[in-house]
Amino acid sequence: MSQSVRILGVDPGLRNTGWGIIDLDGPRLSWVAHGVIKPKTTLPMSERLSYIIRELNIVIDTHKPDESGIEETFVNKNPKSTLLLGQARGAAMAGLSMAGLTVAEFAATKVKQCVVGTGAADKDQVAFMIKRLLPKAEAMTADAADALAIAITTANHRNVRSFRKSA
Amino acid sequence: MSQSVRILGVDPGLRNTGWGIIDLDGPRLSWVAHGVIKPKTTLPMSERLSYIIRELNIVIDTHKPDESGIEETFVNKNPKSTLLLGQARGAAMAGLSMAGLTVAEFAATKVKQCVVGTGAADKDQVAFMIKRLLPKAEAMTADAADALAIAITTANHRNVRSFRKSA
Repeated sequence: MSQSVRILGVDPGLRNTGWGIIDLDGPRLSWVAHGVIKPKTTLPMSERLSYIIRELNIVIDTHKPDESGIEETFVNKNPKSTLLLGQARGAAMAGLSMAGLTVAEFAATKVKQCVVGTGAADKDQVAFMIKRLLPKAEAMTADAADALAIAITTANHRNVRSFRKSA
Repeated sequence: MSQSVRILGVDPGLRNTGWGIIDLDGPRLSWVAHGVIKPKTTLPMSERLSYIIRELNIVIDTHKPDESGIEETFVNKNPKSTLLLGQARGAAMAGLSMAGLTVAEFAATKVKQCVVGTGAADKDQVAFMIKRLLPKAEAMTADAADALAIAITTANHRNVRSFRKSA
């Protein structure tokens, strides 16, 4: 009996919200889709935020993931940037939850450690490893690669949970 | 011909999201309703955020406001608090926008100045003035009073806009 689970990873941002979907079949990961949501910067803030939710809903309706994961926002030294990132993250998380998905949260260092092996990895190293782990993923931006890395982290975390439950 | 406009003010927060609704009929303001949305603190973050949107949707379906306003979040010295407040604000703004409402944004000092006459007013002064301006508003918490103050600020700002348009 197949235990395949489809996972949506999201890397939230007000300008670029990356998303990536993978299937987890036992220990095997495979790429499904990825993309970037780019609300028009000329829109009022409230419409940029609702655009993120609407676009995530289209992704969810199209690919029907079972679970989701999101990166814990990097807390910037600039409070205004932190606030804006928090707003994008809040909208994305609420949207995923309203669509009925659980939302696992992972620190950026945890995502890098899971995919590259070190929490200090840079964006290029993450993108390189994503191409190795998911050879079918092509034409990725850094935001989409990060989102796929979050999906992989969610999958690995899920395997650990399943193992613990069955132990 | 009546030009009555119904305005929803929202004071977002992860623990307490205040909301208040007033009618603006020419220069006259009247209280309609107010309340506070309190997501269970034991819920996962994503469910606390989607709860805020769902409860706002119930308020909007019940009272059918024409426009909305929200306070610009106070940028805390603690980045973690700023991020959490940003998440609550992002969810609330996205929810208002998805419900088809425009969302005017006002700095906290602007709201206080509009209602009390000074941007340095404290919460007690705001609550006192709300009771004077909207005598029918009873049993308010500070969050609901703030939300009504935001609704009044949105109304006043709207009058200025209308005046400018007709000038």
